[in-house]
Amino acid sequence: MKASEIDQILTGLRLRFESSLQQRIPAANADPALLHRAMRYSALSGGKRIRPLLTYASGRVFQADPEQLDALACAVELIHAYSLIHDDLPAMDDDDLRRGQATCHLEFGEATAILAGDALQALAFQTLASGFHQVPGKALQLIEMLAAACGSSGMAGGQMLDLEATGDVIELHHLEHIHALKTGALIRTSVLAPAILSDADTEIIRCLETFGDCVGLGFQIRDDILDVIGNTAETGKSAHTDEERHKPTFPSLIGLKSSQIRASELRDESLACLDKIPGDTTLLARLAEYMISRDR
Amino acid sequence: MKASEIDQILTGLRLRFESSLQQRIPAANADPALLHRAMRYSALSGGKRIRPLLTYASGRVFQADPEQLDALACAVELIHAYSLIHDDLPAMDDDDLRRGQATCHLEFGEATAILAGDALQALAFQTLASGFHQVPGKALQLIEMLAAACGSSGMAGGQMLDLEATGDVIELHHLEHIHALKTGALIRTSVLAPAILSDADTEIIRCLETFGDCVGLGFQIRDDILDVIGNTAETGKSAHTDEERHKPTFPSLIGLKSSQIRASELRDESLACLDKIPGDTTLLARLAEYMISRDR
Repeated sequence: MKASEIDQILTGLRLRFESSLQQRIPAANADPALLHRAMRYSALSGGKRIRPLLTYASGRVFQADPEQLDALACAVELIHAYSLIHDDLPAMDDDDLRRGQATCHLEFGEATAILAGDALQALAFQTLASGFHQVPGKALQLIEMLAAACGSSGMAGGQMLDLEATGDVIELHHLEHIHALKTGALIRTSVLAPAILSDADTEIIRCLETFGDCVGLGFQIRDDILDVIGNTAETGKSAHTDEERHKPTFPSLIGLKSSQIRASELRDESLACLDKIPGDTTLLARLAEYMISRDR
Repeated sequence: MKASEIDQILTGLRLRFESSLQQRIPAANADPALLHRAMRYSALSGGKRIRPLLTYASGRVFQADPEQLDALACAVELIHAYSLIHDDLPAMDDDDLRRGQATCHLEFGEATAILAGDALQALAFQTLASGFHQVPGKALQLIEMLAAACGSSGMAGGQMLDLEATGDVIELHHLEHIHALKTGALIRTSVLAPAILSDADTEIIRCLETFGDCVGLGFQIRDDILDVIGNTAETGKSAHTDEERHKPTFPSLIGLKSSQIRASELRDESLACLDKIPGDTTLLARLAEYMISRDR
């Protein structure tokens, strides 16, 4: 398939996703309106939608049910959206700009932003619990996996370690550990969930795990690189903030050049994993390329 | 059964619950240690444990499986614990004291407190998803119910309305609506979950719903009353804060005397619901009494 055809499929999936997510968040005038407006403002403000696309792309390998994929994709993105709101809070990263617009707490106030994040997390689990009545055993497995991925041993734990490491000089393996929890766990879940749902072989699940870990880390290294070389207009978030905040990053620890090399290696490694998987991995391969070489 | 015997049973259940909850939160030295310490600090700091006790008491009516009740009780209390941490934050109620100790953000800093709340919410869903493998369909129903009860149309929505109403003069029915979401939804879930798990008749579920709504509202009115007449040493939280913050409460809207009458009516109404339920409702009745006439 040509790259342009693959991109067309991905654009179609993205549109499908946006409409599905729209429908799952209560209307902006539903009581309590302020809270629902804040939830919609943050969750429906675009963004790359990498995690949902990974879910659809992985689902394609197993020809998984499209509506079940919608529910999975929405659940992981709702978790991601909640985490961005909370990470941006003054007590955390204190960010003003997200996806080219004012951060949730600047637009709606801190209290509303905290609650919007909390409610989006609950909605993610509600989405999983209500979308899989025909396969309740699988649904429980998915909920357990998502909860672990976003809890204290996953995303929230990674954000904790990230805050603790700010201002410190840390070892590279410690930075990789932080990234594995903070962004890796949810990205891995986005890739794995359709495989679990489709009762994939252990061997294939293992390949997808490695794929998820590689693209997750590569994506984060690219994020670190873009914070150095990118500009706000393109990325939609403030540039050069890592350095200002003395956050340990790949460029700060091993330099820009070595970071770029490491990212390329991870891309190659992720693509090699896909070779071992029967089924259509075209979309996953394209996303791996994009995640590790994107400009925004 | 004598009141002292009932209280002995409740004390036993409380001890059982504390030990079960202890085991479900990662150890204080497990990485990331600071986050786990904050989670344990807040969730294991005592408190009345009303919601878990309601779950055990309701489970007694249906002779539900004790270990499944442990999981249910822990899940609802984890949600409650997370909500207290976030409600106490400077951007929300800005409280210093909770259960007789410094609030989580004063002890660990705001960022850690936000993350501890987030991680406790995830742990609640993880607890439900992992505790009911034999009855996955029921587990999904429970997860859906809990997520709805704590999301934007439940607890988080109630906190939003509560913040919005602060400083306003509101109608009594609006205050009841706020309480129904903010504290009522989770209390109702604590009571209903064992009934759902035990496949109770619709009629009985309806009685328990009304029971839950009555004790939930009665409990909150008692809370409002204690903020006026209670003292910090007994309640373990700062007194007279509602008035200082211009929060609408039952006493501020209808006076202390009428609030006490309303609370008694709700207690009577809740006890009347129990009369229609076959099975041992002794513990539920005792908890209703306690919730609406407690001194702390």
